[in-house]
Amino acid sequence: MDSIRYDWRRLEEVAAELFEKVGVSDQHAQTVAQSLVHADLRGIESHGLSRLPIYLSRIEAGVLSLREAPEIVMQDGAAALVDGKNQLGAVIGQTALELAMSLARQTGIGFVGVRHSNHFGSCSFYAEKAMEKGMILLVLSNAPESMAPTGGIRPFFGTNPIAIGIPAGQEAPFLLDMATSVVARGKIALAAKKGEQIPEDWAIDPDGNPTTDPQRALLGSLMPIGGAKGYGLAMFIDILCGLLTGAASGPAVQSLYDNWTHPQNIGHVFLTIDIQRFWPLPVFQSRMDEYIREIKAVPKRAGIEEIMIPGEIERRKMNEQREKGVRLSLAIAEELEQICIKYGVDWNKAKICS
Amino acid sequence: MDSIRYDWRRLEEVAAELFEKVGVSDQHAQTVAQSLVHADLRGIESHGLSRLPIYLSRIEAGVLSLREAPEIVMQDGAAALVDGKNQLGAVIGQTALELAMSLARQTGIGFVGVRHSNHFGSCSFYAEKAMEKGMILLVLSNAPESMAPTGGIRPFFGTNPIAIGIPAGQEAPFLLDMATSVVARGKIALAAKKGEQIPEDWAIDPDGNPTTDPQRALLGSLMPIGGAKGYGLAMFIDILCGLLTGAASGPAVQSLYDNWTHPQNIGHVFLTIDIQRFWPLPVFQSRMDEYIREIKAVPKRAGIEEIMIPGEIERRKMNEQREKGVRLSLAIAEELEQICIKYGVDWNKAKICS
Repeated sequence: MDSIRYDWRRLEEVAAELFEKVGVSDQHAQTVAQSLVHADLRGIESHGLSRLPIYLSRIEAGVLSLREAPEIVMQDGAAALVDGKNQLGAVIGQTALELAMSLARQTGIGFVGVRHSNHFGSCSFYAEKAMEKGMILLVLSNAPESMAPTGGIRPFFGTNPIAIGIPAGQEAPFLLDMATSVVARGKIALAAKKGEQIPEDWAIDPDGNPTTDPQRALLGSLMPIGGAKGYGLAMFIDILCGLLTGAASGPAVQSLYDNWTHPQNIGHVFLTIDIQRFWPLPVFQSRMDEYIREIKAVPKRAGIEEIMIPGEIERRKMNEQREKGVRLSLAIAEELEQICIKYGVDWNKAKICS
Repeated sequence: MDSIRYDWRRLEEVAAELFEKVGVSDQHAQTVAQSLVHADLRGIESHGLSRLPIYLSRIEAGVLSLREAPEIVMQDGAAALVDGKNQLGAVIGQTALELAMSLARQTGIGFVGVRHSNHFGSCSFYAEKAMEKGMILLVLSNAPESMAPTGGIRPFFGTNPIAIGIPAGQEAPFLLDMATSVVARGKIALAAKKGEQIPEDWAIDPDGNPTTDPQRALLGSLMPIGGAKGYGLAMFIDILCGLLTGAASGPAVQSLYDNWTHPQNIGHVFLTIDIQRFWPLPVFQSRMDEYIREIKAVPKRAGIEEIMIPGEIERRKMNEQREKGVRLSLAIAEELEQICIKYGVDWNKAKICS
């Protein structure tokens, strides 16, 4: 057994308690806890509670500014700019999302740029919330350097993610949440640990050549999806999240892990579309259902049981894990248990005894 | 010699004259002519005057509605919806772009959905115009079926393009204009004609297996960039351009070539951002210049002379061709000459005698 199941609500409670122990306010602690557990529920371990230890360490090291509140520095029509003031990323993200939804209610569209932010969890957390309100959300974020521009051999861009949520009716909604790199750096680190080779299109070595050796890849750069196309998408996201907002861009975005002196100064963009400006929501939702069914009816390749909609696998996982418990790997569970012992929080209450 | 050079302004005149001959109004003829020649100037032959013959044939066949004007069916805050009324795509695109820029001037952001449109040329035509006005433009369009959803083996989505233009100062602006497929179908058709093999990641055969045989590929489906990520991007674009606007979506989008009875009913989205809501334009432009220079300073792979910004190669091509003349392949030049003879238009006035 290399994983244990936990009750997702209890996990949220435990995580929130831990954040409160290091001085995060009640409400903010809940937001960050929900953001992390949401990723675990969807099976995205890389953005789940595995990040809790580094979040806590950074707070304790004083690299974040818990006492500041995100501030709206510009609001005009459908556009706004939020200065996150180096608060917790999920708290800033939540503020920006709410503002973007409020703008969309007023003008049909909300466009909120964010600067001075931190790692804000998985984008799908925000997409889910927007979809619940009948809105389409597009979220962009820049991230610390890991990808070279096409022709270059040193990391410059982050794996700059793009996420889009579009509500459906009875079918699973459309929820695309993707990095602009072929894979995350973590997958290469895992291959290195296991002594396995990696596919040729994942990364380049420090000389800029494709490599199947994960050790060489870790010294080099991640590859963007679709070659120069992914380079273009990552750069677009960096310009909007970094240059347009006034956040850091390129290699100036600080690492979550290797830097204990400077704020990350990450930038995000939240774009909301109020569907009801175009159609009554139920009309749009049933068109989405019909459309999704058309896609699922496309003839399948041998061995494929069902054509899945972006986000559908994760949604099924979430439903299953809400019911049966969230699986955490033993390594993460043990790390969290140690942290709970340190702060006097009861870890075992989240465990599901089977 | 397999190409001849032509004066780009004269090419615009000749193309406009041809459109007028089949009943297109003066102003509309100029817009479409400019759109086509703009693509040739940038070296994107696939979206240049090579499309003029099919445009003319469709007009003559009465598949387009030249007498209708695009109509704004909804305008509210930052959002609007345009019914293209089956006019020429470039005319509809121009109308939508102007509306999106006008909305952005008022509210900071403009979001214009378009339905009942036709092939509207290359997206970069609109991006250039927005950048001239100090705006960021994101354009999306759906297109006739050519890509299967991941796991499927029949075309459902088009090569649904996404284009983004962001102005710089002295450096070349950022202009990404990409299909969500790995390559255009035309590249596979060309390989088939030449009897060459194609890379394994371009297409799947009718059974859904990767193929290096262009003949099998043409019977199958194009591959999206980044596997399931590109499938997600193509679907997102189809939902916004098709479902949100009320245009056709999926396989209901009609072909430009194989269909002489139904309007294409293509949908687009134009999203404009007024940079000046965030920064004085010169400040943003010099930040862009600095950022672009940082990217160009990244250490290069052996054999790479310069790191290029998306759209930079095409911009250099455009500058060169404006000066020295636009290169058209002999096959296209001969086809256009025959059309000019048919309509009594002087083709030779565009030729540059060297």
